[in-house]
Amino acid sequence: MSDNPEVGDLVRVHTESGLILEGIVMPSTEFSSSDVLVIKLSNGYNVGVSRKGAKIEILRKKAVDVGKVSPPGTSRISGKGSLKTSLISTGGTIVSKVEYETGAVKPAITAEELVEMVPEFLENSSLIEVFELYRVFSEDITPEHWSKLAQEVAKRINEGFDAVIVAHGTDAMAFTASALAFALQNLPIPIMFVGAQRSSDRPSTDAVLNLRACMSIAKHAPYGEVVVVMHGSTSDEYILVHRGVKVRKMHTSRRDAFQSINDIPLSKVIMPEGKFIQLSNTYLPRKKGELLVRPKFSDKVALLKFYPNMDCTLIDYLVDKGYKGIIIEGTGLGHIRGPCIDSVKRASEEGVIVGITSQTLFGRVNLKVYTNGRRLLQAGAVPLSDMLPETAYVKLSWIIGNFPDSEREERVEMLTRNMVFEINPVHDMRHYPRWYHGD
Amino acid sequence: MSDNPEVGDLVRVHTESGLILEGIVMPSTEFSSSDVLVIKLSNGYNVGVSRKGAKIEILRKKAVDVGKVSPPGTSRISGKGSLKTSLISTGGTIVSKVEYETGAVKPAITAEELVEMVPEFLENSSLIEVFELYRVFSEDITPEHWSKLAQEVAKRINEGFDAVIVAHGTDAMAFTASALAFALQNLPIPIMFVGAQRSSDRPSTDAVLNLRACMSIAKHAPYGEVVVVMHGSTSDEYILVHRGVKVRKMHTSRRDAFQSINDIPLSKVIMPEGKFIQLSNTYLPRKKGELLVRPKFSDKVALLKFYPNMDCTLIDYLVDKGYKGIIIEGTGLGHIRGPCIDSVKRASEEGVIVGITSQTLFGRVNLKVYTNGRRLLQAGAVPLSDMLPETAYVKLSWIIGNFPDSEREERVEMLTRNMVFEINPVHDMRHYPRWYHGD
Repeated sequence: MSDNPEVGDLVRVHTESGLILEGIVMPSTEFSSSDVLVIKLSNGYNVGVSRKGAKIEILRKKAVDVGKVSPPGTSRISGKGSLKTSLISTGGTIVSKVEYETGAVKPAITAEELVEMVPEFLENSSLIEVFELYRVFSEDITPEHWSKLAQEVAKRINEGFDAVIVAHGTDAMAFTASALAFALQNLPIPIMFVGAQRSSDRPSTDAVLNLRACMSIAKHAPYGEVVVVMHGSTSDEYILVHRGVKVRKMHTSRRDAFQSINDIPLSKVIMPEGKFIQLSNTYLPRKKGELLVRPKFSDKVALLKFYPNMDCTLIDYLVDKGYKGIIIEGTGLGHIRGPCIDSVKRASEEGVIVGITSQTLFGRVNLKVYTNGRRLLQAGAVPLSDMLPETAYVKLSWIIGNFPDSEREERVEMLTRNMVFEINPVHDMRHYPRWYHGD
Repeated sequence: MSDNPEVGDLVRVHTESGLILEGIVMPSTEFSSSDVLVIKLSNGYNVGVSRKGAKIEILRKKAVDVGKVSPPGTSRISGKGSLKTSLISTGGTIVSKVEYETGAVKPAITAEELVEMVPEFLENSSLIEVFELYRVFSEDITPEHWSKLAQEVAKRINEGFDAVIVAHGTDAMAFTASALAFALQNLPIPIMFVGAQRSSDRPSTDAVLNLRACMSIAKHAPYGEVVVVMHGSTSDEYILVHRGVKVRKMHTSRRDAFQSINDIPLSKVIMPEGKFIQLSNTYLPRKKGELLVRPKFSDKVALLKFYPNMDCTLIDYLVDKGYKGIIIEGTGLGHIRGPCIDSVKRASEEGVIVGITSQTLFGRVNLKVYTNGRRLLQAGAVPLSDMLPETAYVKLSWIIGNFPDSEREERVEMLTRNMVFEINPVHDMRHYPRWYHGD
């Protein structure tokens, strides 16, 4: 009854003591004896199980040739459908494999392998292009990466691609999606960011479903916006499409980590059938005119979160270092302590734009209610309505990057102008989630 | 039919054009003619209404003598109940009035006036003490204020008070509640932080209900913990009791802005009857032994939120300035970009404790999954499980303040040890809220 599994196989182990465990076989480590089978459970943990008296069933032979790495670059395949599809890979869990030596995850799977997992790409596309632009963890992504990515996406739009998908690490995905939302305006198609909370060679990966939903979105979405396409629940029932400038990673590990803040998701894709449901009436329709490409970003913008007794010299330090913009996450309606208001005043006087958002995340900044708020306004701070701190940071970097000779007034005008629905002018009940309060 | 209202009266205006508006009469400003009645709506906005052809009903004469300010200090009143109750006022909206000159809000109401609003204090208490300790906006509160407040609360516990309530601004309330949770351990009673999202002289104030719930909690709560007592919904149906180290202000303006993160509320008080319902089985019971008072806090601790391309010299700057601890809000499982890991390494080598939390807020940090995480661990960073960034900041300030001669190892041990349920070892479905996803 017991099979002899190889590293990478999915197995079910019936231990002598009656436990049943399922997972992927890992190489034994220097710490484990050969009598111990090490398996990685679907929750990501490795456990060692004694082979003695255990029954081992192989549920599935390893799906991916572990260790095979194609060189980065572009590959093109013809399909049976009508869409011209491009998948640009930047790195992250969605294109990563378990590193079997340590049980940890590092980027390794090529984008070609990803397409093999998702036959819908072949069915729906006349051409599938897969392009590995980067292989970086998303927290290592910088404004320079944003620029290059924006240019690569623009190139594909101008070449008439119907579906452009960006495979991206989830950690900083919302930042990059925001960057593209400002860099590429007047979009004729949705630009879809997609990631995974479980690596693609794990049986519990969410990558496949998120990618499959992209084909449905490319065909049915009425909007030309930069969106994030991720699981809507912990099961595989539906995928959500979030506006890039209004989404945040809200959980360290759940598949439904991405949630719209101060907004509702744009649409929903019911799985496995791929039925597309439009949820929001407010969107930028697909545009016929010329694509606006402004792909630059300044690296002289910073984000500071306020905390009680915050060292106000952090603001001075950035000003002295030549920073041109600072986004502050204030408390509540957008407050910071008195002494820091003086630092904001000095920053403003030296031409630095100081934008105010709230660390509550939900709701809207209002500096007119309390004295400290009004003092902050007088000091030149710019209240940023219901904009997410992360989006505000990216937007200010984009403004200063593309309009380096602009005056303060123009910068403030652009920062506070609603360009791509980064501001939601009206909030309703749907914009605040429901917490557990008993019952 | 038209009454002649005074400033401060609650009125209903039927305008000539058929609009019906309710609000508090404000003084006319230099910008408004005498034909215009300025009223503050319950949403906080001021509107000017033409008196011409309008019918004005006075719904309620002004409740509070506007402008009356009692001197700070202590006052004591005898009541008809059994509890020995103390309300310590620190400032904030709960003890503030609308500043009629500008329509904005500033602290002015004395704590005595608050008690007058809530007759339950008299019914339930043998003695009610009201003490105005500070009159500060909560964002101006510093570790020094935390220390003094902890000592004042300790004094009252040692004097046998049964109910100690801290009236506090909501903006930084969670920080101060966390501070007291570490400063005062082995508590024989719950220490209740209470605030308001609407100022106390506004008809829509939530202050009264939040305060009334405190009487029920003082009588029925089985725990000796520092808690936050605030509205659970936008209506007046129930009040929630949140664990101070697990709560966050999650909305700029809603009454139900406070929510437990990675935890459920401790209890719920159904209003208006004040029925107490215990929700959580996990709490620190009221202790009989000696109160542990460690009221010091270091001002050499900082909180930094990571963002793509973060200026890593911010970390170096704090280290050079003599900081002893830094809490970083990383992305996802707790990541920061490669170059910043080098700054963390240097900080650790110089004895600075660097604690890692996540900007996702929900979920648990895990530095063992990805390469950047493991590098961060090797650099000496301390992963802080599911602790909130704000709580981690306060805890590290408390550790360094009270144990200034402790070794690195001891500091790390204390920072990662679960003292007052600032770490929730097990998460379940109830710990992640439900967002609107259509239907």
